Amino acid sequence: MQFHQEPRFPKGYRCASRNAGLKASGRDLSLFVSDVDAAAAALFTRNHFPGAPVILGRETIRAGRLRAIVANSRYSNVATGPQGLDDARRMAAAAAAEVGTTPDKVLVSSTGVIGVRLPIEKVESALRGMSAELADTPLAGAEGIMTTDKRPKALSITLGNVTITWVAKGSGMIEPDMATMLVYIFTDARLDASSLDRMLRAVAADSFNMLSIDTDTSTSDTCVILANGLAGPVDEDVFAATLAAGCMRMAETLARDGEGATKLIRAVVTGAASDREARRVAKSIVNSPLIKTMAHGADPNVGRVLMAVGKCFECQIRPDSTRAAINGHEVVSNGLRIDFDEQAIRQQLAGDTVEIAVDLGIAGGHAVAFGCDLTRGYVEENAAYFSS
Amino acid sequence: MQFHQEPRFPKGYRCASRNAGLKASGRDLSLFVSDVDAAAAALFTRNHFPGAPVILGRETIRAGRLRAIVANSRYSNVATGPQGLDDARRMAAAAAAEVGTTPDKVLVSSTGVIGVRLPIEKVESALRGMSAELADTPLAGAEGIMTTDKRPKALSITLGNVTITWVAKGSGMIEPDMATMLVYIFTDARLDASSLDRMLRAVAADSFNMLSIDTDTSTSDTCVILANGLAGPVDEDVFAATLAAGCMRMAETLARDGEGATKLIRAVVTGAASDREARRVAKSIVNSPLIKTMAHGADPNVGRVLMAVGKCFECQIRPDSTRAAINGHEVVSNGLRIDFDEQAIRQQLAGDTVEIAVDLGIAGGHAVAFGCDLTRGYVEENAAYFSS
Repeated sequence: MQFHQEPRFPKGYRCASRNAGLKASGRDLSLFVSDVDAAAAALFTRNHFPGAPVILGRETIRAGRLRAIVANSRYSNVATGPQGLDDARRMAAAAAAEVGTTPDKVLVSSTGVIGVRLPIEKVESALRGMSAELADTPLAGAEGIMTTDKRPKALSITLGNVTITWVAKGSGMIEPDMATMLVYIFTDARLDASSLDRMLRAVAADSFNMLSIDTDTSTSDTCVILANGLAGPVDEDVFAATLAAGCMRMAETLARDGEGATKLIRAVVTGAASDREARRVAKSIVNSPLIKTMAHGADPNVGRVLMAVGKCFECQIRPDSTRAAINGHEVVSNGLRIDFDEQAIRQQLAGDTVEIAVDLGIAGGHAVAFGCDLTRGYVEENAAYFSS
Repeated sequence: MQFHQEPRFPKGYRCASRNAGLKASGRDLSLFVSDVDAAAAALFTRNHFPGAPVILGRETIRAGRLRAIVANSRYSNVATGPQGLDDARRMAAAAAAEVGTTPDKVLVSSTGVIGVRLPIEKVESALRGMSAELADTPLAGAEGIMTTDKRPKALSITLGNVTITWVAKGSGMIEPDMATMLVYIFTDARLDASSLDRMLRAVAADSFNMLSIDTDTSTSDTCVILANGLAGPVDEDVFAATLAAGCMRMAETLARDGEGATKLIRAVVTGAASDREARRVAKSIVNSPLIKTMAHGADPNVGRVLMAVGKCFECQIRPDSTRAAINGHEVVSNGLRIDFDEQAIRQQLAGDTVEIAVDLGIAGGHAVAFGCDLTRGYVEENAAYFSS
C-alpha cells in the first residue's frame, strides 16, 4: 500500500493548532473538525485512573456521532476530581461554540502532566477564532498534541475515492492493552458507528495493542475514528484491510519515536498454541529490558531471546521445538543456540530495525509486537522529567 | 533482629573459591561443604528454558539431602543441550570426589552467559585440592558466584545455639516468580527436608518472589536451604520468623545492588482485595520504568504512582478510596493529588531508599515489593554486555 508523501485529510476535514499558553512556546492546542456530522467509534485506556477527558469521552462516544476533536498537550487533566470533569466539559463547550455544533459532538483529549488543574480559561480564550485557521494540514494538528514526541505524526492513504488519515502522538507511558496514546483516524467513507466500532477493535488488537514503549499504561489515551460519509460507500473488507495497514504503520512510527528510542524492535511469533499465547510471547520480547538494551548495543544475544520467551510461564513452550532468528539469520534451532555469522547480524542490528522472529513449533498461533530500544536517552528524559 | 557484622557459617559448614580460568581474573568457582549430610530443599526458576544445572538440581533435590554446593560464574550452561547436562553431571562428580561424597548429594549452579559450552575440564581441574582451602568465610564463597554484582553478598544471624547464613548473588535478569538469583541458605538447626521445603516456599513468596530488578526472569537461578542438624532442634516458629527476616534483608540487598542501581525502591501496598492483588500492585510499582526513573531523578511524581496502580486492570481499584504516600509524606487522598511539601520529599528521595506506600481502601490484602531505580548505568551495562 502506498501512503501519501505529504499527509492530507479526506473530504470535509480540516484542523488547526495554536499556542494557548500551556507550554512556554510551541503549539499546545489542536482542533479537528468535520464539515458534517461523522459516525464515530473510540477506544480508551483501561487504566483505573482515567483522566477527565476519558470519562467524558466514554459518555460522548455512546451516541456514535462527532463533529470535532479538541486536544491539548502539557496538562493531562487526570486525578483532578469533579473540577477536572467540569473543565473537560467547558473545553468541549468552547470548541462546540467555535465550530457551531453542540458539546455532545466534541471529543476532548488532554495529554501531559497528571494531577495539576488544566488552565481552562487559557484554552477557552485560545479556541476563540481558531475556526478561521482550519486547513488541510494534518501535521499541524499533530504538532499541537506533542509531548515528548520528537516529531509530529500523520499518515494518509487513498483507496478509490476514499481517503483515510491518521494523526497521532506517542512517546512514553505506552503499553496499550487498549490503545494508550492519542490516535485520531479520519475518513470520508460512509460507514455506521457500529461497523466502525467493530473494525476499530479488531484492528487495534493487532496494531496499537501490540505496541509497548515501556510497559506503562497511560491514564489518558484514546483512539477514535470518524467517518463523515462525504465520499460515499466503500467495500468494507478493503477498507478494513487498509485501516489495518495504516494502524500497523502508525504503531511502528510510534515505536520508532518512543522516548529515547533509536530503533524499532519487531517481534514476530509463529507456531504458538494460540494467537493469545503468541501475543503474550511477542509482548514479552519487546518489553524485556535485556532485549531492549541488547538491541541498543547491537549484540545478537541469543540467551536473552530464549529467556524472554521462556519467562512466559503460562504459555505452552517446548524448548525442543523452538526456533529463533534475528533479522533473518537463524540463531536457535531445537531450543539450542546454533552457529551463526555474528558479524553479519551485528551489522544489521546497527541499523534502525531489529526483527526477532520466534517459531514455537506447537500450533498455528501468531502475532507481531512493536517496541523500541532502551537507551540512556530514555533514562535521562524520564529521570529529569519534573512533575510540576 | 541483629545480623552479625562479619558474616560467618553455622557449625559444620565451610567454603572456598578459586579462579578456574573461566573469567580472565577473579574468583569464578565456589565450593560450599557441610561436614555431614544435611536435610535440604530448593526452589528453581520457572523459566521454560532452565539451565542444565537446574534440570539436574530438580533431580538431585528430590532426595532432600545435600553435602555440598558447587557453583561457577561466567558461563550459565543454559541452552547447551545433552552436552550441557553431561557437563553439569561431571561438575557434581568432580565436587563429590573432592569432598568425599556421592554426586547425588552435590547441588550444581552456573551463572553467566547463555548458549556457550561450560569449559568443564577447567572446572574439574580447579576443584582438585580445593577442599584443603575450605574455611569459615561466606564472603569468599559469595565472591566466586558474582557476575555483574558490585559486591559479594552474605549475611548471618544467631538465635540461641542455632545460626543461619545466607550467601547470594543477584544483579540483573531478576523478576522471580520463584527465586531467580542464586541464594544459598545454611543452618545447623535440625529440621527435616519437608519442613525446610514448606518454610522456604512460604518465605520466598514474601521476599525473593517480591523482588524485581528488571522484570526479566533468569534461566538459571536457584534458592536452596541446607540444615545439617549439628546444633540440634529448634523452635520452628522462631526459626521461620528469623529465616523470613533474613530473606527479606537479602532481597533488599539484592535490589540495592541491581545493575546500575543507586537506590532501593520499596512498595508497600495495603487495603487490597486480597494479598494476591496487593502483590500484583506492589510489583507493578517497582517494575514501572517511569517509577524507576522518577526514583532516580528524585522527583515525587504522583501521576506515575497513580498510573502504576491503575494499570493493574485485573485488580479491584477504587480511585475514590485510594491513598498514597512517598517516604511517609501523604501525596494522594481519595484518588486525588493533594498538596504536599515537595522540597521535603525531594530531599528524602535523594537518599538511598524510596518507599511508596499505597492504601487501596478496599479490604485487608497487603504486600511489600522490592526494586531499584533505572539508571544510565543499567543501560550502559546491558547495552555493552556482549554475549560471546
